[in-house]
Amino acid sequence: METMTTASVDVVADQDRKGPGRPRSARADEAIIEAVMDLLSGGQSADAISIEAVAAKAGVGKATIYRRWPNKEALLIDAVTAMKGPSPELAGESVRGDLVTLIAGMRTKRMDHYGKVTACLLPQLAKGEEMHRVYQGVIEPRREVMRGVLRRGIASGELRADLDIELTLLMLSGPTLAQNILRWNPNVADEQFAERLVDAVLRGAHA
Amino acid sequence: METMTTASVDVVADQDRKGPGRPRSARADEAIIEAVMDLLSGGQSADAISIEAVAAKAGVGKATIYRRWPNKEALLIDAVTAMKGPSPELAGESVRGDLVTLIAGMRTKRMDHYGKVTACLLPQLAKGEEMHRVYQGVIEPRREVMRGVLRRGIASGELRADLDIELTLLMLSGPTLAQNILRWNPNVADEQFAERLVDAVLRGAHA
Repeated sequence: METMTTASVDVVADQDRKGPGRPRSARADEAIIEAVMDLLSGGQSADAISIEAVAAKAGVGKATIYRRWPNKEALLIDAVTAMKGPSPELAGESVRGDLVTLIAGMRTKRMDHYGKVTACLLPQLAKGEEMHRVYQGVIEPRREVMRGVLRRGIASGELRADLDIELTLLMLSGPTLAQNILRWNPNVADEQFAERLVDAVLRGAHA
Repeated sequence: METMTTASVDVVADQDRKGPGRPRSARADEAIIEAVMDLLSGGQSADAISIEAVAAKAGVGKATIYRRWPNKEALLIDAVTAMKGPSPELAGESVRGDLVTLIAGMRTKRMDHYGKVTACLLPQLAKGEEMHRVYQGVIEPRREVMRGVLRRGIASGELRADLDIELTLLMLSGPTLAQNILRWNPNVADEQFAERLVDAVLRGAHA
């Protein structure tokens, strides 16, 4: 859980860092985020998770949670974001290179665990608006990074001027998600997946 | 449920059609398939569904179920296949036309319901080998139809000779699934989705 808690410190502010070691509120935040992730990865549905249960598991009072997060939706967004870890650094040398970095970053070992948690969220996503907002709250910042790469590619002339940016985001992430979460096509090799997908999206299938 | 039960009749044999009206065993098969779909769409996890519960809901004995399906996995494959309905007819005039037909067929109104059921299956898919086999049992026949379209396209010279067929299947279905089940990118319009996706996969993003 080390990388996850580190990520959660990035997510939440560290405004009361006064002396050596970690400030008490950052430790509480980590415990809260970790409690949510444990509940989710233990198979609890997002609907079923209560602030009470998170508080009990984290060993804090409910007020400590509400001081930082206005509601469960916001807490879930931060917990899943922390689980994903920071977005990878982009070299900015080519559209292809940056897209490969972003897609490969969706397929790290960490994602094995994350994939299971996402799967637990899916029934809620399909049903409810609240969970859909949580999901969008987690992925939109990542999507915006990829959108920026595509926009720069159009500006530099690497990509077609009439490119449908939103559809292209879906064409890069949809296949990656389907493989990460569902193992949709067992005949697609894991090796060099990001490179092969990005090249196929750039090149097209036409003769 | 009419189209679903019709589809289930296609799936199961109708060997004892002796007189007018539907034979008794076909009616029982329909009731069994419908019971599974009701349990799934009611939010029951595939793991939690028992042959006993299906038998009780369908008003048949367990022996009637086991006479047709060797195990729960086989029953779930037929139930979800029936829910998806028959694969659409292909005109066979162009790769683009056939791919659009297949992708559009994944996005009918029926799929709204199917999407919810798939979502209920997902936690199991991410966890267990059995449910992954069920899922593959449902989608592989569809994937084989699309694979045939791509192979014919390579043979006719419409598609690149070095096309990665398995990856292309994922590039067509992954974005469609992500939108159907997760509404992954709300900025991608539903209108002409199949046409736009197929054209983008064929054309590529490069300038």
